[in-house]
Amino acid sequence: MKNLQDVRDRLRDFSAQRNWAQFHTPKNLASALIVEAAELLEPFQWLQRGGREELGEQQWQAVRHEMADVLAYLVMLADQLEIDLISAVNEKITLNELKYPRHIVHGDARKYDQY
Amino acid sequence: MKNLQDVRDRLRDFSAQRNWAQFHTPKNLASALIVEAAELLEPFQWLQRGGREELGEQQWQAVRHEMADVLAYLVMLADQLEIDLISAVNEKITLNELKYPRHIVHGDARKYDQY
Amino acid sequence: MKNLQDVRDRLRDFSAQRNWAQFHTPKNLASALIVEAAELLEPFQWLQRGGREELGEQQWQAVRHEMADVLAYLVMLADQLEIDLISAVNEKITLNELKYPRHIVHGDARKYDQY
Amino acid sequence: MKNLQDVRDRLRDFSAQRNWAQFHTPKNLASALIVEAAELLEPFQWLQRGGREELGEQQWQAVRHEMADVLAYLVMLADQLEIDLISAVNEKITLNELKYPRHIVHGDARKYDQY
Repeated sequence: MKNLQDVRDRLRDFSAQRNWAQFHTPKNLASALIVEAAELLEPFQWLQRGGREELGEQQWQAVRHEMADVLAYLVMLADQLEIDLISAVNEKITLNELKYPRHIVHGDARKYDQY
Repeated sequence: MKNLQDVRDRLRDFSAQRNWAQFHTPKNLASALIVEAAELLEPFQWLQRGGREELGEQQWQAVRHEMADVLAYLVMLADQLEIDLISAVNEKITLNELKYPRHIVHGDARKYDQY
Repeated sequence: MKNLQDVRDRLRDFSAQRNWAQFHTPKNLASALIVEAAELLEPFQWLQRGGREELGEQQWQAVRHEMADVLAYLVMLADQLEIDLISAVNEKITLNELKYPRHIVHGDARKYDQY
Repeated sequence: MKNLQDVRDRLRDFSAQRNWAQFHTPKNLASALIVEAAELLEPFQWLQRGGREELGEQQWQAVRHEMADVLAYLVMLADQLEIDLISAVNEKITLNELKYPRHIVHGDARKYDQY
């Protein structure tokens, strides 16, 4: 697999072969996605700073697999909702460039609506 | 932008121009990711079934932007942790094919460990 | 135990005996809380409607324990931040009564800002 | 209001007056709860350490209200599922005392299954 279209196609086959598409409403996929996002957060929850060096090799591998799960549900949801993820993220970054002008927010992580 | 490498490159520039990389520890990115995953779930939370037809056009657009945010944080986290997302998801689907054999789980959404 | 003060006192003892208070920054407790909230959501994620009758006895018990975890972290966080939970929820319900006047929102789950 | 029964009673009235009980399936309440848990996490997401002193007064008040929302959905879910929260948390702490014996885990936050 090389790109998100390949991921989508493989996930379509995976679901079709198991007759699981019936469970994959957008609402259920959004629920499943956040459950995986929480499993991704879990190895970090008690870390002091949460840098990479605080993760052991086993935890890094676990994190890698949870990230794969998040991406898989994101791709399945995009497929259901006919959303092009690359185009959506491209558009969102452009919006963020306008919301957070580089000279004003330099080194400041407050949300734009707090200015 | 065509693929996840392009997304990563654009996000690197975006953060560098704002001097925001200092905030992007893996722990913080995993927290930001789940916050966006919740914003993605929010439009679905009171829907009966949660199909696409229950979302209005405005909500669909909001969902699209929240999905973009989830993907952006996933790509930034992968960048910090030196993880290739496409390869990770490919490997994870292969593991799932072994965990959920198609003839056994056909039409059944229970988790594999409940068999 | 009869009330939230008793829960707080028992959790203080539990943490002190294990020397775990050092990990319990508000940020870490808020992370742990959402991880438990996701474990609470997990048994519901593939259900059609998500009513009680769709949960088996074993899942009901699991849900009960996840709810206990959510409450425990909420009480620990309130303890760290010197927040009285009962008073906070009382105040919030009063605010919601003003935001969602009963005659206007009757039977309508849209958010108040969509009116 | 003095305790969780009072909170439950006030929330029952609030929902009944708005005819909102129809939306409050356990699945929907569990979704709403995690959405609030994310709003609770959000003010902490970019903080370095996440201690109380890093929160401003306005953020502390916001956190207090998000905690109220989490508690409200927890109480509503417990009401739907006929769960006594105080008794559930009491039982769960007893289980945790057995899982994490104080002399063994002293000052160590690893999960019990990593021993």
